[in-house]
Amino acid sequence: MPSRYLNFRCSVPWLILSLETLFIIHFFFCFPDVCNLYSPSVSYPDFQDVNHMVIFGFGFFLMVLRRYGFSSTGLNFLLIVLGVQCSVLVEDLLVILKVQQNEGGMESIAKAVVSMTAVAISTGAVLGKANPVQLIVMSLVELIIFYVSRCINRTFLQVPENLTLMHVHLFGAYFGVAVTSRFPEPPPGLDKNRSTPKSDLFSMLGTVFVWVFWPSFNSILAEFKKEAVLNTYFALAVSAVAAFMLSALTSKDGKFRMTHIHSAALAGGVTISYTAQSIQHPWIAMILGLLGSVITILGSHCLQKCFNPAFKLQDTSGVHFTFGLPAVLGAVAAVVLRVVERGISTQWNNLSSLGYLVFVDLGAFCQTISIALITGLITGLVLNTKLLKTVHVSKYFDDQFYWEVSF
Amino acid sequence: MPSRYLNFRCSVPWLILSLETLFIIHFFFCFPDVCNLYSPSVSYPDFQDVNHMVIFGFGFFLMVLRRYGFSSTGLNFLLIVLGVQCSVLVEDLLVILKVQQNEGGMESIAKAVVSMTAVAISTGAVLGKANPVQLIVMSLVELIIFYVSRCINRTFLQVPENLTLMHVHLFGAYFGVAVTSRFPEPPPGLDKNRSTPKSDLFSMLGTVFVWVFWPSFNSILAEFKKEAVLNTYFALAVSAVAAFMLSALTSKDGKFRMTHIHSAALAGGVTISYTAQSIQHPWIAMILGLLGSVITILGSHCLQKCFNPAFKLQDTSGVHFTFGLPAVLGAVAAVVLRVVERGISTQWNNLSSLGYLVFVDLGAFCQTISIALITGLITGLVLNTKLLKTVHVSKYFDDQFYWEVSF
Amino acid sequence: MPSRYLNFRCSVPWLILSLETLFIIHFFFCFPDVCNLYSPSVSYPDFQDVNHMVIFGFGFFLMVLRRYGFSSTGLNFLLIVLGVQCSVLVEDLLVILKVQQNEGGMESIAKAVVSMTAVAISTGAVLGKANPVQLIVMSLVELIIFYVSRCINRTFLQVPENLTLMHVHLFGAYFGVAVTSRFPEPPPGLDKNRSTPKSDLFSMLGTVFVWVFWPSFNSILAEFKKEAVLNTYFALAVSAVAAFMLSALTSKDGKFRMTHIHSAALAGGVTISYTAQSIQHPWIAMILGLLGSVITILGSHCLQKCFNPAFKLQDTSGVHFTFGLPAVLGAVAAVVLRVVERGISTQWNNLSSLGYLVFVDLGAFCQTISIALITGLITGLVLNTKLLKTVHVSKYFDDQFYWEVSF
Repeated sequence: MPSRYLNFRCSVPWLILSLETLFIIHFFFCFPDVCNLYSPSVSYPDFQDVNHMVIFGFGFFLMVLRRYGFSSTGLNFLLIVLGVQCSVLVEDLLVILKVQQNEGGMESIAKAVVSMTAVAISTGAVLGKANPVQLIVMSLVELIIFYVSRCINRTFLQVPENLTLMHVHLFGAYFGVAVTSRFPEPPPGLDKNRSTPKSDLFSMLGTVFVWVFWPSFNSILAEFKKEAVLNTYFALAVSAVAAFMLSALTSKDGKFRMTHIHSAALAGGVTISYTAQSIQHPWIAMILGLLGSVITILGSHCLQKCFNPAFKLQDTSGVHFTFGLPAVLGAVAAVVLRVVERGISTQWNNLSSLGYLVFVDLGAFCQTISIALITGLITGLVLNTKLLKTVHVSKYFDDQFYWEVSF
Repeated sequence: MPSRYLNFRCSVPWLILSLETLFIIHFFFCFPDVCNLYSPSVSYPDFQDVNHMVIFGFGFFLMVLRRYGFSSTGLNFLLIVLGVQCSVLVEDLLVILKVQQNEGGMESIAKAVVSMTAVAISTGAVLGKANPVQLIVMSLVELIIFYVSRCINRTFLQVPENLTLMHVHLFGAYFGVAVTSRFPEPPPGLDKNRSTPKSDLFSMLGTVFVWVFWPSFNSILAEFKKEAVLNTYFALAVSAVAAFMLSALTSKDGKFRMTHIHSAALAGGVTISYTAQSIQHPWIAMILGLLGSVITILGSHCLQKCFNPAFKLQDTSGVHFTFGLPAVLGAVAAVVLRVVERGISTQWNNLSSLGYLVFVDLGAFCQTISIALITGLITGLVLNTKLLKTVHVSKYFDDQFYWEVSF
Repeated sequence: MPSRYLNFRCSVPWLILSLETLFIIHFFFCFPDVCNLYSPSVSYPDFQDVNHMVIFGFGFFLMVLRRYGFSSTGLNFLLIVLGVQCSVLVEDLLVILKVQQNEGGMESIAKAVVSMTAVAISTGAVLGKANPVQLIVMSLVELIIFYVSRCINRTFLQVPENLTLMHVHLFGAYFGVAVTSRFPEPPPGLDKNRSTPKSDLFSMLGTVFVWVFWPSFNSILAEFKKEAVLNTYFALAVSAVAAFMLSALTSKDGKFRMTHIHSAALAGGVTISYTAQSIQHPWIAMILGLLGSVITILGSHCLQKCFNPAFKLQDTSGVHFTFGLPAVLGAVAAVVLRVVERGISTQWNNLSSLGYLVFVDLGAFCQTISIALITGLITGLVLNTKLLKTVHVSKYFDDQFYWEVSF
């Protein structure tokens, strides 16, 4: 192994150490005392559910590669806990810059954990290709840009605070796709980027966890929690059923394919995320869940056959179709639903106000996705400069490069 | 592979699609708006526990076969989410038929998830032998008949609503046993219907999950939640301890047997389910837990040696002794406890009223078990007609027949 | 296999049976009715979290050996449920002896589950070496001595009730280390006391569970629950990050080592346990988490290279550095923090009162650790008398000796 790799790998702990020192210094100067920071709007059980889902659920959900189990759960764990602290720091900076109001500690951490979902999703796109330093840099950059993007949405487009956070899937997926497009493709004969039945079972374990906790995720910051819970549950139920249906329809011989189930069962939760608290009729939530599942499965075929080879990108755990496409669908559906609802209530008289509504909502969507793509591309380029790009393609998808593995 | 099998398998998605369309149409016409359907009696955390237990816990609990891991968790997941929607539809039909009052949405879904336990249990009996179409048909039929059976209990025998739901283990187990008796036996030399240490570990994972959440399950619809939680906890604790004791006593060389632990640790929860909220003294709950464990382990030996070969039935994951026998014991114990309690309070003066009590309680029990057995047999016969019976015995217990498996 | 082993193994069920009979008789005579025993201070969801963490989390956390998965989870499960009942019995005895007030049932069980953590930790030290009878005897003895130690702390040193319970890690770890020092060392060439990637993954699963639920654990009996939750979360987050940093720093080639992550990620929770509810500034919690992680990783190198060979002890899952050293650090930090806080508030005028404070706190610490070590040594000697010592060293670390394992 060339010495440059070794030297480089040894820089991981120093990077972490300097970050952690920064966080502690920041908490020393900025963070309010514990007794002042418990907010009534987010209770501990709600927070616990989301924390469990992001750390445990996503950690095991990402365990799709045959020889990358340690890194999938381990590095996801590292990135989340690092990112939550960074997120609290960024939020405090925004408070100092007067862009945002100060909030209670529990709410602040809950938002941080929700934001970290974007990082967990992007990690899925570069899974097995990025080394820990690249992942840490990527997650910090992504986190900061996501905050900036949310600020723009909130300040200029008047999107409510809790809805800005629901762009997390959209942002995470397209940022991840843009980053992964700058990584070199693995050689075609590589066997390590496939799954085994064992890794699929662990991934199923994580998927079911994420599925079960998704209503908590969509309702944690919602104003109308009960509605958000029920709508999310219905959307998830339909998309899980549709996942099996579409998997059997689209695969050879009518067999189920495990990766389809993993992706499409979660699509309902992503699709409904913008509208979970405002939908009044459960059947709308169900149709959204169904469409989310359809777009995921069709997307997985189209993207893997046409889009990915054309752009020479490899999206390891398929976050583009698992989170990206359903989030696009959800954003469009949110605009349509809002326009229809407003239109009906004003009897379609006030068309200019409707136009403004469409403009704002689509604006927030386009702003988020374009920032994600552009900054993702830049981040991908930076990560693949000589300074940071250290793993040879033949070492992709292998735990042994980062972990002491004993057989 | 004969083409009939292929054609048949391709019908799975169309069956699911037509069901899902039906559900969405029903929700369009019948289901109340989201804002009207949150009930105060079932909170979201309670519901979450039960949902987690049924989808995650039972999914992994069923993973006992060496080559059937995908189907165990995957198909359990499919059946539960499909069944919950069907259950809400059935309940709305009953409301329209004026057999039942309308309820809040969360309570309605919570009841649906509890009812689905019956299907999860029956699935355990035919695990590896029924194909997905058979499973879907079975679960829908079972769900509807369970509703009918509950209606009879509630209307004619005046059993309280929440107790009718506690017949779920009894119904599920005997329905499953009756169905599986109509399936052909696997050839004697088959190796695939055994477990491996790995599948046993995953099954242990599921068992512990089910065990931990059982107090939530027994208390979700109970009137006296605290009592139900504590009694269930004590019964479960004793039956877990007794499981180890009896396993060592009954197996060769005094070794523990994993399947014994899986079954008997849960027996206490099943046995106590009818009486969890009415028992006043924890020692009674503990004795019920102990007896449940005893009947499970003894039952597992007797059934596997005498009963199953005599009736030529193969109960793959042993639901007869895991859920069936403890439920019978629990039903009998409930009658005895109620009679003794009433007898003491009336100083044994009003014997005719006691007799009526026994008549009603035993009536509900006999009605449930006989409906389960009869309709189970009929369902089993229907499932094994030429139309639906498509898997050859040599393909039993194998994921590869339904899933794309890559090694 | 010599017949003595067989005869001995057959005594396991009788030991369990007699214990269980004792518990049921005790509950018959002593335990209050269910309706009187629900305490308001511990809610069911809090209890559920801790129960889940101890039974599921620790069960899988201990699954570090390649051929000892059944015993790790199975026997942990047995010991916890047995111990909880025993703990309730001990507590009732103390009430009868007027050492302690009577409490509600839920609080009593919650305390019992928290106490059982000591047993789970000690089990980790003798994992694979002690047979079930030895484990049961050890856990009952440990439980009773822990109660005695808590009584001394509460009565003579005026330590508040909930803080006495937080000595559970300290007590469990040093008791376990003392017991394991009396067991013969396994032969040097033995391969079975190593982990495989699969067992490491299961252990990671358990670790993440324990990590996620640790705030619930530290806050369940705390007076200031919110503060305890937030401080514990910050400490855990920093120690998880530091675990990766230190693992890469101390291992060859800068690779991560899975056992380091398992141990050090949890160190923050242990270190903060005494002070979680009294720390006012999150940065103190973060520094404690960092120091906990440092002492764990450094400890793991020093202990395994110098201490363990010198004392000829083998601490199978490394509880000494995972729980012991961080608990010592936490106890020392608690004294320092309390003295500084009191000193600042009295402007360092009342030095004799400060001295008394130090005396009392250090007294509680020294009393706990010395009782743990002395009684642990005695227990270890008793467990290795001819009567109980039955497993030959060559049978260590093997499921097949206690379980029917089919491949």
